[in-house]
Amino acid sequence: MSQEPSFTLQQLADRLSAEPVGPPDLRLARPVPAGTADPEGVTFATDGPKLAAAAQVPIGAIVVGRDAEVPEGVALLRVDSPRAAFHTVLALYDRTMEAPPGVHPTAHVDLSASVDPTASIGAFAVIEADAVIEAGAQVFAHCFVGPRSRVGAGSILFPRVTLYHDVLIGAGCRIHSGSVLGADGFGFVWNGREHQKVPQVGRVVVGDGVEIGANSCIDRATCGDTEIGAGSKMDNLVQVGHNTRLGRFVVLAGQVGISGSCQIGDGVAMGGQVGISDHVEIAPGAQFGGKSGVMAMRRVEKDAYFGMPSLPVREALRIIAAQKKLPELLKEFKALERRVDELEADK
Amino acid sequence: MSQEPSFTLQQLADRLSAEPVGPPDLRLARPVPAGTADPEGVTFATDGPKLAAAAQVPIGAIVVGRDAEVPEGVALLRVDSPRAAFHTVLALYDRTMEAPPGVHPTAHVDLSASVDPTASIGAFAVIEADAVIEAGAQVFAHCFVGPRSRVGAGSILFPRVTLYHDVLIGAGCRIHSGSVLGADGFGFVWNGREHQKVPQVGRVVVGDGVEIGANSCIDRATCGDTEIGAGSKMDNLVQVGHNTRLGRFVVLAGQVGISGSCQIGDGVAMGGQVGISDHVEIAPGAQFGGKSGVMAMRRVEKDAYFGMPSLPVREALRIIAAQKKLPELLKEFKALERRVDELEADK
Amino acid sequence: MSQEPSFTLQQLADRLSAEPVGPPDLRLARPVPAGTADPEGVTFATDGPKLAAAAQVPIGAIVVGRDAEVPEGVALLRVDSPRAAFHTVLALYDRTMEAPPGVHPTAHVDLSASVDPTASIGAFAVIEADAVIEAGAQVFAHCFVGPRSRVGAGSILFPRVTLYHDVLIGAGCRIHSGSVLGADGFGFVWNGREHQKVPQVGRVVVGDGVEIGANSCIDRATCGDTEIGAGSKMDNLVQVGHNTRLGRFVVLAGQVGISGSCQIGDGVAMGGQVGISDHVEIAPGAQFGGKSGVMAMRRVEKDAYFGMPSLPVREALRIIAAQKKLPELLKEFKALERRVDELEADK
Repeated sequence: MSQEPSFTLQQLADRLSAEPVGPPDLRLARPVPAGTADPEGVTFATDGPKLAAAAQVPIGAIVVGRDAEVPEGVALLRVDSPRAAFHTVLALYDRTMEAPPGVHPTAHVDLSASVDPTASIGAFAVIEADAVIEAGAQVFAHCFVGPRSRVGAGSILFPRVTLYHDVLIGAGCRIHSGSVLGADGFGFVWNGREHQKVPQVGRVVVGDGVEIGANSCIDRATCGDTEIGAGSKMDNLVQVGHNTRLGRFVVLAGQVGISGSCQIGDGVAMGGQVGISDHVEIAPGAQFGGKSGVMAMRRVEKDAYFGMPSLPVREALRIIAAQKKLPELLKEFKALERRVDELEADK
Repeated sequence: MSQEPSFTLQQLADRLSAEPVGPPDLRLARPVPAGTADPEGVTFATDGPKLAAAAQVPIGAIVVGRDAEVPEGVALLRVDSPRAAFHTVLALYDRTMEAPPGVHPTAHVDLSASVDPTASIGAFAVIEADAVIEAGAQVFAHCFVGPRSRVGAGSILFPRVTLYHDVLIGAGCRIHSGSVLGADGFGFVWNGREHQKVPQVGRVVVGDGVEIGANSCIDRATCGDTEIGAGSKMDNLVQVGHNTRLGRFVVLAGQVGISGSCQIGDGVAMGGQVGISDHVEIAPGAQFGGKSGVMAMRRVEKDAYFGMPSLPVREALRIIAAQKKLPELLKEFKALERRVDELEADK
Repeated sequence: MSQEPSFTLQQLADRLSAEPVGPPDLRLARPVPAGTADPEGVTFATDGPKLAAAAQVPIGAIVVGRDAEVPEGVALLRVDSPRAAFHTVLALYDRTMEAPPGVHPTAHVDLSASVDPTASIGAFAVIEADAVIEAGAQVFAHCFVGPRSRVGAGSILFPRVTLYHDVLIGAGCRIHSGSVLGADGFGFVWNGREHQKVPQVGRVVVGDGVEIGANSCIDRATCGDTEIGAGSKMDNLVQVGHNTRLGRFVVLAGQVGISGSCQIGDGVAMGGQVGISDHVEIAPGAQFGGKSGVMAMRRVEKDAYFGMPSLPVREALRIIAAQKKLPELLKEFKALERRVDELEADK
């Protein structure tokens, strides 16, 4: 068995520059969510009620603010920012898969491909002609890197990611298992007898520091590039259509779908299952609540949106509230009509 | 060619404890949906109209109730419960892929992994360090079982399922092709310059008897566990976020998305494309119609829901019906206003 | 490095039967979207404003109509139909992956499988018992073709497509990476203690000329067939349930979900994220805007639809417009009520 990470209270205090309260050799085996009963767990609390909840169950230690009031007998790690410190704790216990440098003997690497000696190629991975795997990149088992595609320095393709041909991944990216980059854009023209395929000959270009969740799809451009801007993050099962350009630091939650030829500005954020039709241009910083939709050929200003078709969130919520009163309104309207009938009859 | 299963009327009658009507040696090559024309097919009918439809086309035999009235000349299998008996028929004709016990010579199994001799490991499968494959489990071709992950007794991973590290699958589960368990939860914190990654160091824990469809994704917890309760069933392309806990016997139809940190009670059922935002708590037995949505940080009582945002189904349908009258109401309102104008003028 | 395709203006003119305007040996390295600045790019324009936009930036050459008015100094390819001609240009520059005929030495092909000598089987592909790979078919790396499944002549399975057993693919199909055909239909019966599985023993049958996007799922029938009609095209992350039958030339955009036992007529078109519940019958030629939904057990006539539940698009848009006025209407209604109160009081 590989050794489980484990730290004492004192060791964690040293790493966090925290003030420890409790037995220095208290063993803390794992980080846990606040409220979990786990005498070997370490958790955190950012305010009084959360702290009360965390301290109500058996817990190894709690990361808290310098001045937090805590009941007797609970081991603590006092820090300036409990949330940030807890992220450090998480990193200490992280056992994410890491692939050793070098090419696994079962991998299939084309002779014309270039694999940096510090890169890792996993079992049964396929690296096709003229592909480039840069320094420190990790390409896990069952990945497919197509002709002329590139995996930038330090980027990770988790098991069975597919890059078709001419897909360029920047440095420091993480692409999760099952994602497909560079499949054909969805382009057909009805010729009177059948949907004739429009050849899809462009590329996919992904900037540095991008994270893509599991089983997501980013289609190649018809011509030119489908682009994912540096620092953008997308969750699982996301669809990005051909020739769409995402800016930098865009955040897409699970199952978002963006059609083709969209321009998504820097810092745009979309909740789960949002759908954007084709040729939509979204201003930097716009935000969309879950399940919102934008219809084709529109420009969307910076605002927070909700609904389908999406409206500024305040307007959308006002309409939703009004809709609940609609069945009653219909009845009241009939009643009012009768009263006017009577007034007219009396005239 | 592998032998196709084929049964005579008499053989099926014996297996079903049915009363056969028709030639005992009648060959029945396959089960078919009611209404399919297939002289070698066997189908079923639970009531008069369905029986009439099934008997209207050429059909080998029909599984019917003991007392069903059936036209002359149709071969029958009379049983107490036609539907249940037909499920037995389906099982008799089932030719689901089965993997032979043992490790395929092309598979890559880490020396520290534990594979039960009765388990099956398919071609090009990868079993990483300290993984455990229990008795009778079937891990099909191209699967990846990460470090310290476990496949419980008799569970099946169909081709190219990915389990990242620390993913624990119970006994008797079926996980379909392309599903990914244990990819990182979607957690980032904006630090003023970029979305900083929150390490995702928890696990995924799947109970016994769970079925997961194709290309679904269940993310690992930030810390602690993402949990799928025993006996839960989910369809294809489903997303379950980090730290979410599904109870037992939950049913999720295709393309459902559940965000992080949700608590989904036992027996909850969701139709296709339902979306649940983060930190939602849903009471046992609640039901959601297709495309319904629940916004963040809510508690949802047991009821049947529909719409986005979802409402009790009766209320939702009343609102939908009223909405259809809304354009007309706007006109009628203007007319009524004019009548009141006139009454006031006449005063 | 494999040679990049490159054509001179004259060479393109010859291929397109176009009238060239400009230096015959002008090198055109790649097709680009209109409006892209690229002195080696070739683009196209179908009308005046688009042509103006295309000519506003440095560009190698523009494919335009025979009579289009174009500013001096821009190289042109004059043709009858710029769009159609540009599709030919795209095809000329296409460098889609192609697999060489023959079985890759690392592939695992069962002895009982039949692989045509002109077919291609990629690295680490698995072809199971009694499977058939017809002439000219390309099965890329990491694909899994289950027992008794068939890949028709000239069809392409891009890397890591899964066909379970008894999945029949016609001729000239393209199935993109990560798609799964033949996973179990989602059928369970609650028996008072658990969701009992209904065996799924039918097939998937895909007609000729079908294209299926990446990470899509088509489930096998409970019994009988799930069918995809010839010439149908579907995008990424699409779900088609068990026993559903798609007609010919159906078009499904990304993330569409169709439940089980539906009948989708010829030429039906659905926008992104449309959801169709079970047992729905849709007439040929019906169209659905993005995110539309159809509830279970309905028949849908030929029309254009929108919304959830979907309505004829004109009615849906009228209701959406009216909804925006609803909060105001509620206020106006209160005001009118007060006026009637006063009239009654004065009476």
